[in-house]
Amino acid sequence: MSELPLLAQKLDASDELAPLRDRFVLDPASGDAAGAAGVYLDGNSLGALPANVPDRVADVIRRQWGELRIRSWEESGWWTAPERIGDRIAPLVGAAPGQVVVGDSTSVNVFKALVAAIRMADAGRDELLVDATTFPTDGYIAESAARLTGRTLRPVTPAEVPAALGDRTAAVLLNHVDYRTGRLHDLPGLTAAIHAAGALAVWDLCHSAGALPVGLDEHGVDLAVGCSYKYLNGGPGSPAYLYVRHELQDRFDSPLPGWNSHAEPFGMSPAYTPAEGAVRGRVGTPDILSLLALDAALDVWDGVSLTAVRAKSLALTDFFLRCVAEYTEPGRVECVTPERHAERGSQIALRCADAGEVMKRLIARGVVGDFRHPDVLRFGFTPLYVGFRDVERAARVLGEELG
Amino acid sequence: MSELPLLAQKLDASDELAPLRDRFVLDPASGDAAGAAGVYLDGNSLGALPANVPDRVADVIRRQWGELRIRSWEESGWWTAPERIGDRIAPLVGAAPGQVVVGDSTSVNVFKALVAAIRMADAGRDELLVDATTFPTDGYIAESAARLTGRTLRPVTPAEVPAALGDRTAAVLLNHVDYRTGRLHDLPGLTAAIHAAGALAVWDLCHSAGALPVGLDEHGVDLAVGCSYKYLNGGPGSPAYLYVRHELQDRFDSPLPGWNSHAEPFGMSPAYTPAEGAVRGRVGTPDILSLLALDAALDVWDGVSLTAVRAKSLALTDFFLRCVAEYTEPGRVECVTPERHAERGSQIALRCADAGEVMKRLIARGVVGDFRHPDVLRFGFTPLYVGFRDVERAARVLGEELG
Repeated sequence: MSELPLLAQKLDASDELAPLRDRFVLDPASGDAAGAAGVYLDGNSLGALPANVPDRVADVIRRQWGELRIRSWEESGWWTAPERIGDRIAPLVGAAPGQVVVGDSTSVNVFKALVAAIRMADAGRDELLVDATTFPTDGYIAESAARLTGRTLRPVTPAEVPAALGDRTAAVLLNHVDYRTGRLHDLPGLTAAIHAAGALAVWDLCHSAGALPVGLDEHGVDLAVGCSYKYLNGGPGSPAYLYVRHELQDRFDSPLPGWNSHAEPFGMSPAYTPAEGAVRGRVGTPDILSLLALDAALDVWDGVSLTAVRAKSLALTDFFLRCVAEYTEPGRVECVTPERHAERGSQIALRCADAGEVMKRLIARGVVGDFRHPDVLRFGFTPLYVGFRDVERAARVLGEELG
Repeated sequence: MSELPLLAQKLDASDELAPLRDRFVLDPASGDAAGAAGVYLDGNSLGALPANVPDRVADVIRRQWGELRIRSWEESGWWTAPERIGDRIAPLVGAAPGQVVVGDSTSVNVFKALVAAIRMADAGRDELLVDATTFPTDGYIAESAARLTGRTLRPVTPAEVPAALGDRTAAVLLNHVDYRTGRLHDLPGLTAAIHAAGALAVWDLCHSAGALPVGLDEHGVDLAVGCSYKYLNGGPGSPAYLYVRHELQDRFDSPLPGWNSHAEPFGMSPAYTPAEGAVRGRVGTPDILSLLALDAALDVWDGVSLTAVRAKSLALTDFFLRCVAEYTEPGRVECVTPERHAERGSQIALRCADAGEVMKRLIARGVVGDFRHPDVLRFGFTPLYVGFRDVERAARVLGEELG
């Protein structure tokens, strides 16, 4: 009999982050007496529900909207929520206060960041490099940004970026972690190479923020965007965020200069004068219900060390690979996520021809990952609420379903 | 003694829409025994809370997100919510199904609509006309759309539009009802004039939708946008909507072609192929909590006739003007909202030098309107929940505060 279940139990017992699981609404944990345990390995698509969100949102709706109504824009702090919540996300991505603002979707923020980056670059730089392996929306939006600003879009793999950089490069849009393979790209190294070429570095943090340290300030990233519904657990379609480095904020020239980014939004002036600071990245009226659900969701990070999160994330994915190796016939699946820790995000992607069917069967058995066309089984490991017994169980069920 | 309180009582008694008030969470009605009655005349800024919203959102959070998690994208209909809820808004703006999609802010939708309209216009048309009296964000965004597409922006008053139209006009952005004065512009006439000049008509419905019939299809409007948090009561910052006329949808070329607007969003293709229909107006992952709060809020329209809503709206504003005339010293305030029904939206704007201070005192006494810089008292009349005794009381308190 395998020693893995016992090992999983030991790893859980010594996991200092294990108590954080209670901050979420989840099925009974693997290893609990009840048989209803589910294993949720899709937090890289939609984070689980933090336990304090329902009551907080109920208060926002019943009291702030229902009773205070319009007064809540001031009295409940609605108006400043985008930058206030941005400052709560900031430490999770290694940013000092005043550089992150929350609102709109990731796609809309990619558009703001790219057009602004192109406008910050020297006028003669006519090329925009974009990760050819990116989550498609980034590529589509980059194409639109290039078209509207008269630049040329050049898709390259992250590995090709250093060689592709040159005098023509205005900006480069890259993903910190690839959504499909789970590969972690070298943010410090690539940012330095981009800067050495005189271009701006724009990073998409959707699959890294909340799973590992990002270090935006430390590595001199120029602009960054990310969603808040994966490892930040903000809820389905919760608003995205935009980071603009302090030194660049005065030159941030938004293609979406809505009234919320105006220096005096209630002056109702027909002339546009942009606000100072991160607020300049705002557009229209902020989506309060979703913003304040996210605000509540961010409470789960109180006292949590990202170093510990990263260490557990790697331990979880290492252990998953070990379990898969033991429970699955060699060659049945191919791991497309890098083995090296320095190149691995917080997910494991396994390739097999029948991935779509296999994932359906896993989900039917309570092991929830997702399928990415055409042949990838994707498993996300959220260190705040996934344990080692969860991992062992998921790999065991996977092995059984792979036959 | 004034006969107005008695008249208000009679008008309330014969108001067929009066029972709709119970579909909202509000303070005790004016005329109720309790003395705590508030009068909410700011539904043109933030609509009151529909009574069924809290439980619906609680279910979305606890069950759909908390228990079903990622499965809800399919099982709870999250993925198709933007177009499904768009089809619920459609009849309120006179649109057949398949032309309205919900998501993003009004500002972002103005951007989509204007860039798309410019791209639909003949290439030689290099001018964009925009309402110079508009809510500022529309002007700021129009300026950005013109800049990014190499067009010239020309601000004109709606009255100047017919004379300003010509061979150079690509598109015209107008407000159906002016946010400040409450003036209702001639949507059918102006749209016809714009079409006669060979240009496209883009209407902002923020201050008309839900307060009066709009007739988008009937009048051949090309594109339209609107928010959902005023007369549609969707909640603070709830998502806006975009209307694209059926005949133009194949030519709708979005400047924000996010993955949600792709023909096969889960194909994850690096090449962008736009979806057919209204879905083409989508961008990123839809904001589910806010969308489904709006979905619940739209239930209040079940069985409601917009003709009856418009009739009551005019009766309310007429009665308010009559009460103000009786309760306020002549010349103390100037009404900037047109007297003629054909030119009046669902609000009354009164000008006086000390408007800011007066509004503070009104709010302190439970009569909630709002102040618009520099000298306007703005009162919105939502026919679904404002009654005639509310109106009489508001005018009486206003008269007292104006001294």
